[in-house]
Amino acid sequence: MAEVDGAIKRDGGPTLVQAMNARFEGPMELNSGHVLPGFDLSYETYGRLDRDGENAVLVCHSLTKGAHAAGRHIAQDAHSGWWDRAIGPGHMLDTDRYFVVCSDVLAGGASTGPASADPATGCPYGADFPVVTIEDMVNAQRRLMQHLGIVRLHAVIGGCFGGQQALQWAISHPDAVRNAVVIGTGPDTSAHTIAIFSVMRHLIRNDPNFNDGDYYAGPGPVRGLANALVAAVPLWMSRDAMGRRFARRTMAGQPPRYTLEPEFAVEAFLNSIANQPRPAIDPNSLLYLMRAEEYFDLPGRYGSLEAALKSVSARTLFVSYRTDWRYPSEETDRMHQVLLRQGTHSHHAVLDSPLGHGGFIYEVESLAPEVVPFLAEEDT
Amino acid sequence: MAEVDGAIKRDGGPTLVQAMNARFEGPMELNSGHVLPGFDLSYETYGRLDRDGENAVLVCHSLTKGAHAAGRHIAQDAHSGWWDRAIGPGHMLDTDRYFVVCSDVLAGGASTGPASADPATGCPYGADFPVVTIEDMVNAQRRLMQHLGIVRLHAVIGGCFGGQQALQWAISHPDAVRNAVVIGTGPDTSAHTIAIFSVMRHLIRNDPNFNDGDYYAGPGPVRGLANALVAAVPLWMSRDAMGRRFARRTMAGQPPRYTLEPEFAVEAFLNSIANQPRPAIDPNSLLYLMRAEEYFDLPGRYGSLEAALKSVSARTLFVSYRTDWRYPSEETDRMHQVLLRQGTHSHHAVLDSPLGHGGFIYEVESLAPEVVPFLAEEDT
Repeated sequence: MAEVDGAIKRDGGPTLVQAMNARFEGPMELNSGHVLPGFDLSYETYGRLDRDGENAVLVCHSLTKGAHAAGRHIAQDAHSGWWDRAIGPGHMLDTDRYFVVCSDVLAGGASTGPASADPATGCPYGADFPVVTIEDMVNAQRRLMQHLGIVRLHAVIGGCFGGQQALQWAISHPDAVRNAVVIGTGPDTSAHTIAIFSVMRHLIRNDPNFNDGDYYAGPGPVRGLANALVAAVPLWMSRDAMGRRFARRTMAGQPPRYTLEPEFAVEAFLNSIANQPRPAIDPNSLLYLMRAEEYFDLPGRYGSLEAALKSVSARTLFVSYRTDWRYPSEETDRMHQVLLRQGTHSHHAVLDSPLGHGGFIYEVESLAPEVVPFLAEEDT
Repeated sequence: MAEVDGAIKRDGGPTLVQAMNARFEGPMELNSGHVLPGFDLSYETYGRLDRDGENAVLVCHSLTKGAHAAGRHIAQDAHSGWWDRAIGPGHMLDTDRYFVVCSDVLAGGASTGPASADPATGCPYGADFPVVTIEDMVNAQRRLMQHLGIVRLHAVIGGCFGGQQALQWAISHPDAVRNAVVIGTGPDTSAHTIAIFSVMRHLIRNDPNFNDGDYYAGPGPVRGLANALVAAVPLWMSRDAMGRRFARRTMAGQPPRYTLEPEFAVEAFLNSIANQPRPAIDPNSLLYLMRAEEYFDLPGRYGSLEAALKSVSARTLFVSYRTDWRYPSEETDRMHQVLLRQGTHSHHAVLDSPLGHGGFIYEVESLAPEVVPFLAEEDT
């Protein structure tokens, strides 16, 4: 199969990668009871799959990211993929060694989801697309791994929403996962995170152009999405991180002017996010992905955390951030302790990144010393 | 003067109070250099001023509250004032002992501010009202105290935005303050709080009905204000408080339905705030009050925290909440340590309320054991 060859080119210029897509026919039953007649998943790969199909590392993306984790699609792209610093030759996920796959999720912007045509009508599903869960997303990715010829994942890795997927992989498909790296994730999604997502949902749905999700023929809730993304900033960027980056500096570096107009550097940063020219994600897609994260509840789904983690056989590395007040270390540690009690190899690294919850994306240098030896199984 | 008699009636029914207003003529220079030709302040009083004019306690309100701190205006009012549990006979601020005054601030909804007529045009100021600071607000309140015949405040007390006022009182008018209770306040406003306020500002100003603040002839930015107030909820209500109050309960108390429609109890709570029928505050007023809080910066204004607090002679009680991540205890403690070093009576109580920053409003029972003996000067 052509697509098992990794798409990374090394010619001295920017690393070029190709977005790919796989179509899966046949019914796919969801947690909700709905059945999808088939589905598409978009994905990217970096590096090369070994002959025995056992050197693959699946990267699960966080909420507003997607399958484009590394490299550029064309040399002129303004930015590389969202985890470019983690993926590449000699990087934390070393493409000389591993075949790295980053898969979009069901309902993600480039895969089957609310923007896809409903076979019943020929028109985009919009809000008629069924709600999908983390478990549904992982089951779909399992089909992709088989399609790619991956016999067993050397590892699955992800943070936050991606960490929920990594955990679910180890629970639902223990025979298919050798190592799991679960970052910034707890046993369930808190009322507080549901509240944050409710705010974002409110801002998107109350845009007059939202039209109950049926907006693909019009401009769509561009303003509502921008509002939702800007409202989330003080929730993912910690107080300390903002203090370090902006302090109380004024934009002009001058004493305060006593004005309602933009005055502080942090205010200019927020305004730049609010006024981004191009929406980063389809608003409907964001609504479905948030909902999947909200429904993540291991004790609720399996009866108890112990029951949820009983099937896990993967060596597991948990990473949490001491300053992450959305997914606190103590909650991560509850999962680690359950695995230890049941005799599963587990390690919990608590890192000190001032970024808190966003640490795994931007501070690869503090993550790598934990992840690299764990993936190399040097401690086995 | 009639208004020095407290307005509390005790007839077995609800405690009835009266909103009052005082007009001050003559120029008032602001920190910005602008001069107001005169101003109005609205206020309420509870209890009775002693003959010597030394038993008054000034309550400084927090951001979206106002002068209506206790009792009801008419028996049919749905709610009592915002600190009703703290103010009354035998309460923490005992109206049998103290003459309690709650004063609105400049730019507050019921006093001179953006909704007032600009003498130059006869039309509401809107965004042409000058930006006012905490210092300006306190200077205006000082005129009100003189007007009421208060010789020296027995105490000034407030939390957050109100705590900034209490602190500024002790700094600007040391001879007029005997005791200061400063709750949930730091030496300056953080980049993170400026970011939160920038989000709220963005949501209000981007409402098409905002019309650059000149909306008093139309419906005004009702939706934008509701958006701003709902966006702020996950920022003042802590993760723990939300977890305790809502956990992952569904609205129906049933297993999840896998729907985009409201499902979780916390989501219903957010929606109820988003869909409040009547705006709680004039949107322009909120913009000015947030700005005043943002400009609060003792080290910046006075050169250093030591220089800022040098004039303070009031016995000072700082209260902070261990779980308040917006105004952390460590920052409160810096002020306490400076006062101790300069030989000023200071005490810092760190409380454990799960509510965090909102603790002072809702958990009067944990605040009272610190405040009551401090106001009685039992430790002197």
